[in-house]
Amino acid sequence: MHIPTLIERKRDGAELSASEISALIDGFTRGEIPDYQMSALAMAIFFRGMTPNETQNLTAAMMQSGRLLQYPADSPPKVDKHSTGGIGDKVSLVLAPLLACDEVWVPMISGRGLGITGGTLDKLESIPGFNVNLDERRALQQLEKIGVCMIGQTADICPADKKLYALRDVTGTVPSQPLIVASIMSKKLAENLDQLVLDVKFGSGAFMKTREEAAQLAESMTNVGNGMGVKVSHLVSPMDEPLGHAVGNALEVAEAVTTLQGGGPNDLIDLTLDLAAKVSMAPRDKLARWLCDGNAWRKFIALVEAQDGDAGVLEKITSVHAAPIIWPLPAPRAGVIKRMDAGTIGRAALFLGAGRARAGDEVDFAVGFSRIKNVGERVEPNEPLLFVHARKEETLASVLPLLEQACEVAE
Amino acid sequence: MHIPTLIERKRDGAELSASEISALIDGFTRGEIPDYQMSALAMAIFFRGMTPNETQNLTAAMMQSGRLLQYPADSPPKVDKHSTGGIGDKVSLVLAPLLACDEVWVPMISGRGLGITGGTLDKLESIPGFNVNLDERRALQQLEKIGVCMIGQTADICPADKKLYALRDVTGTVPSQPLIVASIMSKKLAENLDQLVLDVKFGSGAFMKTREEAAQLAESMTNVGNGMGVKVSHLVSPMDEPLGHAVGNALEVAEAVTTLQGGGPNDLIDLTLDLAAKVSMAPRDKLARWLCDGNAWRKFIALVEAQDGDAGVLEKITSVHAAPIIWPLPAPRAGVIKRMDAGTIGRAALFLGAGRARAGDEVDFAVGFSRIKNVGERVEPNEPLLFVHARKEETLASVLPLLEQACEVAE
Repeated sequence: MHIPTLIERKRDGAELSASEISALIDGFTRGEIPDYQMSALAMAIFFRGMTPNETQNLTAAMMQSGRLLQYPADSPPKVDKHSTGGIGDKVSLVLAPLLACDEVWVPMISGRGLGITGGTLDKLESIPGFNVNLDERRALQQLEKIGVCMIGQTADICPADKKLYALRDVTGTVPSQPLIVASIMSKKLAENLDQLVLDVKFGSGAFMKTREEAAQLAESMTNVGNGMGVKVSHLVSPMDEPLGHAVGNALEVAEAVTTLQGGGPNDLIDLTLDLAAKVSMAPRDKLARWLCDGNAWRKFIALVEAQDGDAGVLEKITSVHAAPIIWPLPAPRAGVIKRMDAGTIGRAALFLGAGRARAGDEVDFAVGFSRIKNVGERVEPNEPLLFVHARKEETLASVLPLLEQACEVAE
Repeated sequence: MHIPTLIERKRDGAELSASEISALIDGFTRGEIPDYQMSALAMAIFFRGMTPNETQNLTAAMMQSGRLLQYPADSPPKVDKHSTGGIGDKVSLVLAPLLACDEVWVPMISGRGLGITGGTLDKLESIPGFNVNLDERRALQQLEKIGVCMIGQTADICPADKKLYALRDVTGTVPSQPLIVASIMSKKLAENLDQLVLDVKFGSGAFMKTREEAAQLAESMTNVGNGMGVKVSHLVSPMDEPLGHAVGNALEVAEAVTTLQGGGPNDLIDLTLDLAAKVSMAPRDKLARWLCDGNAWRKFIALVEAQDGDAGVLEKITSVHAAPIIWPLPAPRAGVIKRMDAGTIGRAALFLGAGRARAGDEVDFAVGFSRIKNVGERVEPNEPLLFVHARKEETLASVLPLLEQACEVAE
């Protein structure tokens, strides 16, 4: 197969065949196709897009570049959720143990935070001792025991995606829908699932800015998954203000703990139940009950303990990771909160150190925001709109102007 | 300067500034910007094009990536011609010595053949001993003595173009007008010329298929050159049948020799004089006289001798490089030649070994075609349409079907 010819065909709008796409991904994964050809192809895909067939074939080729999780023949249905990422989105922490209250397995493979989007693995690692790097054998033993594991991607899973994503990141080829679909779905489908629910977000704190874009992405991911034999459903959900009242690693774990104990904010509870109901055999009201009656909370404790975490500190996690500075941001006037901009708050959290500007950066578990008020709430003058948790005075000072932009109080 | 951001800006249709383009080309030439970023940028340029300003800035940055030829302050005007390449195009061999009959210097830097297009350097090297690799000092001495040199690109000239072209060649980014313009013009303008005439060809044997495309390319190259202070003019000329009657390295030298001695085919003579008249201070009829009165021929002998070539064999160059097989292709019927397709004949010449499928391949000086008849000529049945000069029976057999496609005789 002559690679420049394949690049030219894509460049000129032709459809690549399954075997051509598979040869491209195999050759790239093995290092036989150099980065400079793959980046040119990725840019051609950015401009030309891909047909549904091409997108599915690309996803399959990337998935098959590595191992799929393997289960015993008589194991229960495997289900999972994937979110395209938002600000304060700690749904996975609640949803994974909740789903595992029923007779399903939840082999959840998550990622780390990058840019304004937090990562489930980072949040979990704020729990002292929590080990996200289980090998497949140990993950399987845990599934057999408690029905849920929350782990990172192993080196064996989707090596093509790791390599391609790193290349896209530095060549201006990230925002291409078929490449995004293939990247997300190849990793999720490597979990060898029966059912998957997608939470595709849109708004200032999401990758997709409009509902239309998000719906299109959701549609494409759903089709690819269904085409590959997995029952995929999706929600398209707004992300213009943070989900819940907390943003930041330990702060979000604390909010998840409250929610698993039957408290927690309504938007988080609703979204978690909506998503869970799409893949659970249990009805929504039963799922809601498991959040209140201690079932989900006990499952979460079992999960933390199974992965070497210290479950004893879960209820005081914000003391384990306490920011030296906790600063209330006063409302400038009495009125109603009109805007609490998720994207801007996400950038502020990144500046505080809660996230990563680039892969490999350290994250600060303690910093972020708590008690973030919702759009529509009434406030009095000087009443705190949120609390900033900062490591240093300078970082606090640097985010205050951002926060003033983010929060709008209308009279 | 953050390279992914520059790639994204080009991808999204923004205009890059002179300093951004110069930073990109400098960084790429020094190896600081990796190939995978440059190939993604080249693909973005393929889709987005470049503004006239960007194209000129790219040309300037590429030219300035290396040395410009330097001349004494009181030297005569420096003039040259560039052709975008055709089949049987041996104009340079005639035009360079012809121009040097007048009081100008012709510091002609040429290339090698690639694909169906022959290269002036290959043709010159079919002359035993001819040395195209003069250093700048020796080239200058020769210009002072005889007013003309015909040499290859030194390593010092346009290193950015060498590197970028090699990358474009394997990433599907060759056919981009601004990249083509910058590649051609940066090399030609590194000759530090006063005047340049461009021969931009269109048709089956040319890179550009239509007159419109060729005119657009010519316009863009002319504007870039004029914008950089060189007086540039152009011809847009058809390339649907081979130029002259010979295709192949030594065979074309033989035809050039005949032309320099006052013979030769009319199409070759006319095109040479049309181009020469654009950059010479001498009028066309004087140039025509120099072709007939031995002046141009003596200049060519002086050129060959100055560059260590054996001028004594010029009149028998096809005996020096004699193909073992010379095969007349018979006309299938009596009639008028309706088509003698340049592109197909070029491909056939490539199969015979006259050209290079890829850079670095060896060329066979002896093979090609001679006595190619022109469109419009009358032929009798079995009268030869052309003579194939082949090294082996197999290669002859492999080109015969191509030639049958190339030549059409209408009743």
